[in-house]
Amino acid sequence: RSGEMAKLTQLIDNEVFRAYATYAAIVLLKMMLMSLVTSYFRVTRKAFANPEDTASFGKGDSAKKFLRTDSDVERVRRGHLNDLENIVPFFGIGLLYALSGPDLSTALLHFRIFTGARILHTFAYLIPLPQPGRALSWAVGYAVTISMAYKVLSKALYL
Amino acid sequence: RSGEMAKLTQLIDNEVFRAYATYAAIVLLKMMLMSLVTSYFRVTRKAFANPEDTASFGKGDSAKKFLRTDSDVERVRRGHLNDLENIVPFFGIGLLYALSGPDLSTALLHFRIFTGARILHTFAYLIPLPQPGRALSWAVGYAVTISMAYKVLSKALYL
Amino acid sequence: RSGEMAKLTQLIDNEVFRAYATYAAIVLLKMMLMSLVTSYFRVTRKAFANPEDTASFGKGDSAKKFLRTDSDVERVRRGHLNDLENIVPFFGIGLLYALSGPDLSTALLHFRIFTGARILHTFAYLIPLPQPGRALSWAVGYAVTISMAYKVLSKALYL
Repeated sequence: RSGEMAKLTQLIDNEVFRAYATYAAIVLLKMMLMSLVTSYFRVTRKAFANPEDTASFGKGDSAKKFLRTDSDVERVRRGHLNDLENIVPFFGIGLLYALSGPDLSTALLHFRIFTGARILHTFAYLIPLPQPGRALSWAVGYAVTISMAYKVLSKALYL
Repeated sequence: RSGEMAKLTQLIDNEVFRAYATYAAIVLLKMMLMSLVTSYFRVTRKAFANPEDTASFGKGDSAKKFLRTDSDVERVRRGHLNDLENIVPFFGIGLLYALSGPDLSTALLHFRIFTGARILHTFAYLIPLPQPGRALSWAVGYAVTISMAYKVLSKALYL
Repeated sequence: RSGEMAKLTQLIDNEVFRAYATYAAIVLLKMMLMSLVTSYFRVTRKAFANPEDTASFGKGDSAKKFLRTDSDVERVRRGHLNDLENIVPFFGIGLLYALSGPDLSTALLHFRIFTGARILHTFAYLIPLPQPGRALSWAVGYAVTISMAYKVLSKALYL
């Protein structure tokens, strides 16, 4: 079976695939970070969604008042959901794109711009920056994903 | 390294994988379209989630009144979330399925039915169509994904 | 083209990849199950989000009262969203990890612990268990994904 393993290793040795793996892991980790930011704001703002999460604050009404929404928590959650809506298509379409044989330099350009745009988007959402900061960073990431999808469909189309 | 690239190209040259790449790209693009539909309804219904998004409508109370939920916006957002909940499993299980060596015609049948069902589901949600239109289109996509998961587990099971 | 198909079949014959495919399919199916649990609670609690879903209960106010949120339904929906936030990164980073040539036993350890943690997390959310039951099961799954991301980046890094 070492022959098969060698073949798998070749995939991860391919430079385009390595670049994809690197940037895909970075944006997925960035998305995961939103969970920690949400927890941080839930604890510091004392704003929870589940009764069992407030049990340590006492019983009855003294704990119940922490079952509430907080504008900072909701902001992070919107940013997290926006990541899911945009990073999932990047991961999926990016994988197909990386397997469709693009030039290394073109692929790197796509991956780097998307990753930069999504990191900017997170800062624009959490600081928050005035519009159109968040809208533009969102649109750049969106356009990169469309561009990769175009390449995938023009290369692989089989309906 | 051109040898490795050739091997990657072979993956995208495989007909089952090309069919998977095509339909996966289509449903991911369809899911991305929901972002644009949400933006369209937010702007036309003047219903925003972030204070910075309403700044162009003036300051203070004149802008604050656009920080509200709108039933059309919420409907699109529910459709978008439903896409995430269903298209993500299709993408993941479909990738494993495409690599598990299915017949081309069986694979095409799965991919086409899922894609058709999800497009119908979007129309059923946005128009909206009377039930059970949306429920049935959802169930068909769900059943296709379960069918592919069954094939993956019966072929690859390694616990 | 049978030669290409053979190569694809080799991927699914690789033991690490088979283990990945098995556990990825299991956690994606577990995530899909949340849709059925949500439907079950919506029907038994008579709490719906769309007017067309309540049409079978009659017209006007008699149906409108079922357009409401219910704490059990919202709990399942939070569990479902938490799955999306955590199982999507596992699927993506886990795929890259499986292709990065890990030891079979190390890979199995990662996949098994993540899958066990997420199943526990679902029970902790739905029963619900007192904290820190849910928090710990969440943290274990999170840590496993970080560990795989570290391996991917240390093996594949290409910025």
